Amino acid sequence: MNNTTNNRYSVILGNLGNTCDRFLSSGYKEALPKNEMVRQAAAIPGIEGIELVGSWDIREDNVAEVAGLLQEHRLTCVSIIPDLFSQKRWGNGSFGAKDPEIRAQALEETRSVARIAQSMGCPLINLWLGQDGYDYPLTADYRRQRTDLMEGIRVVASEFPDLRFALEYKPKEPRTHSFQARAADTLLMAIETGLENVGVCIDVGHSLMAGENVAESAVLLQHHGKKLFHMHFNDNYRTWDDDMIVGSLHTVEYFELLFWLRESGYAGWYSMDQYPYREDGAAAVSESVAFLQSVEKLLTPQRFEELRELIAKGDATASTRWMRTLMFDRA
Amino acid sequence: MNNTTNNRYSVILGNLGNTCDRFLSSGYKEALPKNEMVRQAAAIPGIEGIELVGSWDIREDNVAEVAGLLQEHRLTCVSIIPDLFSQKRWGNGSFGAKDPEIRAQALEETRSVARIAQSMGCPLINLWLGQDGYDYPLTADYRRQRTDLMEGIRVVASEFPDLRFALEYKPKEPRTHSFQARAADTLLMAIETGLENVGVCIDVGHSLMAGENVAESAVLLQHHGKKLFHMHFNDNYRTWDDDMIVGSLHTVEYFELLFWLRESGYAGWYSMDQYPYREDGAAAVSESVAFLQSVEKLLTPQRFEELRELIAKGDATASTRWMRTLMFDRA
Amino acid sequence: MNNTTNNRYSVILGNLGNTCDRFLSSGYKEALPKNEMVRQAAAIPGIEGIELVGSWDIREDNVAEVAGLLQEHRLTCVSIIPDLFSQKRWGNGSFGAKDPEIRAQALEETRSVARIAQSMGCPLINLWLGQDGYDYPLTADYRRQRTDLMEGIRVVASEFPDLRFALEYKPKEPRTHSFQARAADTLLMAIETGLENVGVCIDVGHSLMAGENVAESAVLLQHHGKKLFHMHFNDNYRTWDDDMIVGSLHTVEYFELLFWLRESGYAGWYSMDQYPYREDGAAAVSESVAFLQSVEKLLTPQRFEELRELIAKGDATASTRWMRTLMFDRA
Amino acid sequence: MNNTTNNRYSVILGNLGNTCDRFLSSGYKEALPKNEMVRQAAAIPGIEGIELVGSWDIREDNVAEVAGLLQEHRLTCVSIIPDLFSQKRWGNGSFGAKDPEIRAQALEETRSVARIAQSMGCPLINLWLGQDGYDYPLTADYRRQRTDLMEGIRVVASEFPDLRFALEYKPKEPRTHSFQARAADTLLMAIETGLENVGVCIDVGHSLMAGENVAESAVLLQHHGKKLFHMHFNDNYRTWDDDMIVGSLHTVEYFELLFWLRESGYAGWYSMDQYPYREDGAAAVSESVAFLQSVEKLLTPQRFEELRELIAKGDATASTRWMRTLMFDRA
Repeated sequence: MNNTTNNRYSVILGNLGNTCDRFLSSGYKEALPKNEMVRQAAAIPGIEGIELVGSWDIREDNVAEVAGLLQEHRLTCVSIIPDLFSQKRWGNGSFGAKDPEIRAQALEETRSVARIAQSMGCPLINLWLGQDGYDYPLTADYRRQRTDLMEGIRVVASEFPDLRFALEYKPKEPRTHSFQARAADTLLMAIETGLENVGVCIDVGHSLMAGENVAESAVLLQHHGKKLFHMHFNDNYRTWDDDMIVGSLHTVEYFELLFWLRESGYAGWYSMDQYPYREDGAAAVSESVAFLQSVEKLLTPQRFEELRELIAKGDATASTRWMRTLMFDRA
Repeated sequence: MNNTTNNRYSVILGNLGNTCDRFLSSGYKEALPKNEMVRQAAAIPGIEGIELVGSWDIREDNVAEVAGLLQEHRLTCVSIIPDLFSQKRWGNGSFGAKDPEIRAQALEETRSVARIAQSMGCPLINLWLGQDGYDYPLTADYRRQRTDLMEGIRVVASEFPDLRFALEYKPKEPRTHSFQARAADTLLMAIETGLENVGVCIDVGHSLMAGENVAESAVLLQHHGKKLFHMHFNDNYRTWDDDMIVGSLHTVEYFELLFWLRESGYAGWYSMDQYPYREDGAAAVSESVAFLQSVEKLLTPQRFEELRELIAKGDATASTRWMRTLMFDRA
Repeated sequence: MNNTTNNRYSVILGNLGNTCDRFLSSGYKEALPKNEMVRQAAAIPGIEGIELVGSWDIREDNVAEVAGLLQEHRLTCVSIIPDLFSQKRWGNGSFGAKDPEIRAQALEETRSVARIAQSMGCPLINLWLGQDGYDYPLTADYRRQRTDLMEGIRVVASEFPDLRFALEYKPKEPRTHSFQARAADTLLMAIETGLENVGVCIDVGHSLMAGENVAESAVLLQHHGKKLFHMHFNDNYRTWDDDMIVGSLHTVEYFELLFWLRESGYAGWYSMDQYPYREDGAAAVSESVAFLQSVEKLLTPQRFEELRELIAKGDATASTRWMRTLMFDRA
Repeated sequence: MNNTTNNRYSVILGNLGNTCDRFLSSGYKEALPKNEMVRQAAAIPGIEGIELVGSWDIREDNVAEVAGLLQEHRLTCVSIIPDLFSQKRWGNGSFGAKDPEIRAQALEETRSVARIAQSMGCPLINLWLGQDGYDYPLTADYRRQRTDLMEGIRVVASEFPDLRFALEYKPKEPRTHSFQARAADTLLMAIETGLENVGVCIDVGHSLMAGENVAESAVLLQHHGKKLFHMHFNDNYRTWDDDMIVGSLHTVEYFELLFWLRESGYAGWYSMDQYPYREDGAAAVSESVAFLQSVEKLLTPQRFEELRELIAKGDATASTRWMRTLMFDRA
């Protein structure tokens, strides 16, 4: 357990752009050109990496251009997220769709993104299969569709053994139920592929929304073969994916999470994933990174040792007092 | 308590059109021309009324055209919903915005819709103030903004005493917190205006999402001066506004709700308000009406009397047995 | 708005005793004698007041003894909570029971507690009507039982105009639905009595569990005639009344709540109400008071002014940064 | 897939007795003698089996007596649930306690129950480890305690290879977080033991409370090596373990669940697990069995085929119409 390494922070590029919802589909702000978004991202203190979304940000026809843009701003491409959710054809799913033709297209789309990743030296494909799920009782085949989903991932991940594939779970939205809904069921699917290069991505907001203790989910994934491949950060009120500024609501929980990420040997990026609908995007992301850096700074080797002792002891009053003193009463 | 009157069913016109969410902003289906949507609505068995949304469906410049279209299909205009949520200017609220200029615009927009309603003989303005709320701690002035909101409604409702204004509450979305969040707080605001023509609209899904027992909320509103002015119907999993087909999930609760709506003297429309993202709109709305009609048909005078006795007795096993027998074991 | 007055802290006596749940009905700890509980309460730094529960802690036959005990430890009796929930006869409700005989007993029990309060100089009766609600659909008469409930409160409160009656709401437990479930519906009932001396008690955990923003609920109650009569403090995970140490989970929310309590002129006690099942009771309560005192200390006049400006501005990033800096990065 | 076998119904004996909660620890009803409870259970139409709780119902010193009682009423002992939750010593956990002495006692207690099961010919031990979890952040060692828990189960299950051990998960209560919280994480633990005779028990209410689609969880468990060993039935409002009469709230969901239990080859008992706090126990359990039998009866081979087609098609409107017609409009 090395607890002195510095965390590396990144951001999903789209966080800097316009954001819409179903009531205001044109978005709450104005769209920015891609190079301006990259410039703003690079200017955020602490940000060293970028996540791109396929088709929105990057396609086979603009790889050189985007790669150049990132290089110019000394940004690493941390992951690419295939667009398997924002087109009409994916409306009823991608890898887990009932239509075999759609499943074939999902495979093709992911292969394309994987090739892009290889060509850019990007080591991770982050799969968020938001449309793969169901809405109503008596409409989904939980056996068949789950198996199809797993098979699709197995096929593409086995074709690109030099890339890692992180499965990002979320209990609902846009479907009322996702097939990859929680940490443990998604881990089961990753294990079922039998492949070393398939793991899980925790989006903190998705985990809160699923009723999980995020730190416990991280430990669970690491316990089963270091399967925590990636982390997305944001905050919410625990009932929905509000995609708010990191630490705007959960403080103790974030403190515990950052302790356990290090304690369990998580070595990936700390990536921001927000929807600053009504906020200045760069400012909101900047504040998120600042929150995580504040916590990181307070997690000194001595406090790390104190936390280990508190956890071993398990005295709720003592742990609460320690945290309160740190936040509100420290010298 | 007249329990023999027939219910009157209506639908929000947009239910027949395209529907989008934040991930697929172009929508899951193709948009339909307005006259085709009206035609489809009129063809749904049981539908006699239509609700229109300002700016989307109706503006001062197309009143005659739309009125003609409805007349042609023998549809009544049941209510108009001012568009105080789908434009960038409302992003931080309408009647409760911090910016006085925006509050003035909200007033003007609602007056315009009220004039349209008068000219069409439509008796109800349904106010869903979805953007009036807040997202983060320490960003909203709960006293000032709530008072501004109430004042705006008081001004416009007092200018149009021949129209009724129904306040449609919802706990969250698009904000993480709405000012008009639940039945009782919205009723308090309606009462605070001191106006006879201000009441409340229950959207069943919003009420479920707020953790309410919908039937109890209806009774509460009726108890305080017959303030239940309007009803929107749909269904969901209780954690989010899934806007599903009526009765696709809640059966007992719907049975109880329809009993109490009649028992408490609700005399308004039974209006469908769904988001059939991936379904055929007309079919989904049609099924919703059919569900409500099925329940209505089973609520015979004799069963009505039986229910009164069950409720007076309060024996959980007896009530459950009655409902189970009706659904699964009736002769 | 006086923002320099010191808060006054109290505790419900039972917090120091044994606590059970439905699986371990003998309790997780050993019971303590009453005088030991009082001694421990008095020893908690900051505690000046005590809340007593009728029948558990105080009855007409032990008033002098208990009053003497409190006096000995210089503790004020802040409120008495009639026992309308922990006896078999209340199993189906008290003031709102269907059985008129039970309603009469509830009245009698509350009169007895009111006389005790008068004799001890205790100014507040806190009514938590936990058994008044329902469990199943089609078993409750929402009109009749709610009216009976209100009438019972009206009768007893009008008989004791020198006492204040605070209605403590809670969405569920021990019933699946309480009649006094949320701030606004309980306020409506207080208003319906037409009595100055009937108001509302916010239990922070009950409010969180109801999906409320506690600060907003406090402001709502104060806005409608200063109806926030009392406050109970604890913490939970928002889905259940976990009755945990104050501030063990919610920090930003508590900070905002304490700001608004003062800003809205709340002048009552800050009373601890926890269930330290597995913790040392005195230590757990002590930590709760320390948390509130820490926040109180940080709410200096200057920070108070800064918060007013942040709230007026409503910039989520700025508010979040202010809070983060205070907690984790202050000089 | 055999879809003609009849379901076998059983009940946990304690369902017929007194039930308490933390506010009314003496219980809402009167306690019944054990032989009266057994007599009542045997009289419920459809009930053929009984589940017993260790120490409450059965101990090494009364095995012969209890076995005789069951035999007299022709009841099969379906499972025994070791009492690892209702004594002070288990207050901080059993197999996952931090104290090694307590872990040793948990092992001993379970061995004792396993021997009883063997002597009675009871094939299943149902492990509900309700106290194994944690309440506060920074108090639990998610790695160490989870591993200890798994090890304890592995040890005892390997010692009794002729018995099956079903792990019953629940997200919270009595702890704010259980280690065995959801279907997938509990399945992971069962798999981790590497033993054929360790599987999972779904309590329908626990699964609903965890935000799961129960049918999907059942399929998941069956998909991974037929690991669904046992089923507990009850109902709730999805936020808490209300332990209500089966089908009193969820109808469509229960219909789908019973379809999938058969479709996925579940061959275990259908066991009632309720807390009829204020109801007559025998009547409430009887109604639960009647609900399940009603659904079973309607699931004819023809309807079974229709459901397979609906699920394959995945048309939400068609599935909803089918269900509505069956419940409310069938000939």
